[in-house]
Amino acid sequence: MNELRKDPITKRWVILALDRGKRPNDYSYKEEEKETYCPFDYGNEESTPQEVLAFRNEGTKPDSSGWWVRVVPNKFPALNGKELNKEPHGMYDKMTGYGYHEVIVETPEHNTNFSEMSKKQLKEVIWAYVKRFNEIKKDKNIKYIQIFKNKGKRAGASLKHPHSQLIATPIIPMTILDELEGAKDYYNFRDRCVFCDIIRQEIDEEERVVFQTENFLTYVPYASRFPYESSIIPKFHSDNFGELEKDDELITELAGVFYNLFRRFKRVLKDPPFNVVLHTAPFAEDTNEFYHWHFEIIPRLTNIAGFEWGTGFYINTVSPEKAAKDLRKEEEEI
Amino acid sequence: MNELRKDPITKRWVILALDRGKRPNDYSYKEEEKETYCPFDYGNEESTPQEVLAFRNEGTKPDSSGWWVRVVPNKFPALNGKELNKEPHGMYDKMTGYGYHEVIVETPEHNTNFSEMSKKQLKEVIWAYVKRFNEIKKDKNIKYIQIFKNKGKRAGASLKHPHSQLIATPIIPMTILDELEGAKDYYNFRDRCVFCDIIRQEIDEEERVVFQTENFLTYVPYASRFPYESSIIPKFHSDNFGELEKDDELITELAGVFYNLFRRFKRVLKDPPFNVVLHTAPFAEDTNEFYHWHFEIIPRLTNIAGFEWGTGFYINTVSPEKAAKDLRKEEEEI
Repeated sequence: MNELRKDPITKRWVILALDRGKRPNDYSYKEEEKETYCPFDYGNEESTPQEVLAFRNEGTKPDSSGWWVRVVPNKFPALNGKELNKEPHGMYDKMTGYGYHEVIVETPEHNTNFSEMSKKQLKEVIWAYVKRFNEIKKDKNIKYIQIFKNKGKRAGASLKHPHSQLIATPIIPMTILDELEGAKDYYNFRDRCVFCDIIRQEIDEEERVVFQTENFLTYVPYASRFPYESSIIPKFHSDNFGELEKDDELITELAGVFYNLFRRFKRVLKDPPFNVVLHTAPFAEDTNEFYHWHFEIIPRLTNIAGFEWGTGFYINTVSPEKAAKDLRKEEEEI
Repeated sequence: MNELRKDPITKRWVILALDRGKRPNDYSYKEEEKETYCPFDYGNEESTPQEVLAFRNEGTKPDSSGWWVRVVPNKFPALNGKELNKEPHGMYDKMTGYGYHEVIVETPEHNTNFSEMSKKQLKEVIWAYVKRFNEIKKDKNIKYIQIFKNKGKRAGASLKHPHSQLIATPIIPMTILDELEGAKDYYNFRDRCVFCDIIRQEIDEEERVVFQTENFLTYVPYASRFPYESSIIPKFHSDNFGELEKDDELITELAGVFYNLFRRFKRVLKDPPFNVVLHTAPFAEDTNEFYHWHFEIIPRLTNIAGFEWGTGFYINTVSPEKAAKDLRKEEEEI
């Protein structure tokens, strides 16, 4: 069974998932692609675990064709435990690998991606995120749900078919803890949400803004770690991504933002590998006043080197202002 | 001029080094190597900035052939400012890119690496680390010195010729701050160094130990983030790497440890790309009681995916116990 282990120095949790080494891979060690059997294509539904959610044509059966978005448990899960047990190991701490690891198959189409999908399809993908997020949140052992997407081998994808993933964990991950701590310090000092202040300053300065809609801001962060790193953030204050469920129009608007941004990436950066990562509040913590959900989008244009690993101190060779300008100048409908 | 910028949420500093995009590269976007002019070969000394340290044959002139280890400022430095100015930018914080960025050319031999060098040569490399560390430490604007090595493109190297790097920064990098904070919490709770306790438990349990010498332990950390990640740590308590300068025999012993470990990596992991990162105490902080210097060595066998970026929460598919066992079973002299 998988296991969670905690580093006693940094307090960082690590998942040991020994079976994941066996998962199939569309990419060889060299960067070219292989043509292999795809478990996410129409007709291959039996090769995944049973679906937990699907948007599908009326009258079609679960785990058969006819869906347009399909969510299944990962066949090689990072977390899969049924019981949550916490134990010491001498001076160390561990727990069972309790949690959920799901794959959101974004479309039946094998050869497409976020920069080519319709707004309608992107909206359906976001709806799948929201639905699964709010469903899994009901499990009181879960402290955080990470929704993310790896596109391309360099970004860590092992399969080419467009998909996102969801990992629900019994601990709050380190990066989120760091953000919470920083946001709370800021709130204690200024009595305002740090993200709301960033939104205010970015809209005011303009030069790092890629584009805005009524409710969302897309910008390149002031202290970007990576060239063309971008954030999508709601302009209104909200710490919980799951609240989108109440507002179909907002999801439509967010789908338009995705549509616009990924098409810009494709044109400006020649369809790069990328990661999309949702940051949202952990559960059972009172973060409502000072946390603010957002998406981080990181094009993977360069390799990460030892200096970055050793220090968490990133060297970025493209200024955020230039990155935003390059992305801004491409006209694109929303 | 380069600039340091701070993320207001996580408090992570980022270096903007716009010229570094122009540096030469032995590796194309695809993984194969190109044959290019090497600025680190004998006879090409003029193509680097003037050397700041060289171990060279008597009677040879600076910036000419005849050296066996040579340290030069990086031609495309991450940090290069001459003056340290700190300023706000609205709600954000920035400072000039003050600091040092040097290259330790480990040998005149173009086609070798840590797993093939003699113990004698490795000792000279470590001596160069120690000498430059203690020299740069005299600059009171410098708070931290990061010594690291990227071997292979996947590990972030842009040149093939064996080299390490040193970046000296006017701030304490985030990862080190996290380690300091955790180590201090532990010390406050137990009145002991967390690293000394780890050494004790690892030696006692044996199963994550790769090998030991009189003064150094090489082991695979309990909560390893990556398959075959290893640590080299002095068994005696010391927070400051620079203190090695007092003890030539200890440097000889450490060179033997490097020799042994990298030859094991080569045989067990087929000469993988890797990063070596030194963690040592920042300056002008009283960390003597609770911090403990060490090297982290990370073979780069897999790509880092979105989940890891988003959360700082790593999925490792090889158990630390198996990794240590695999590395341990290769007999190797020290």
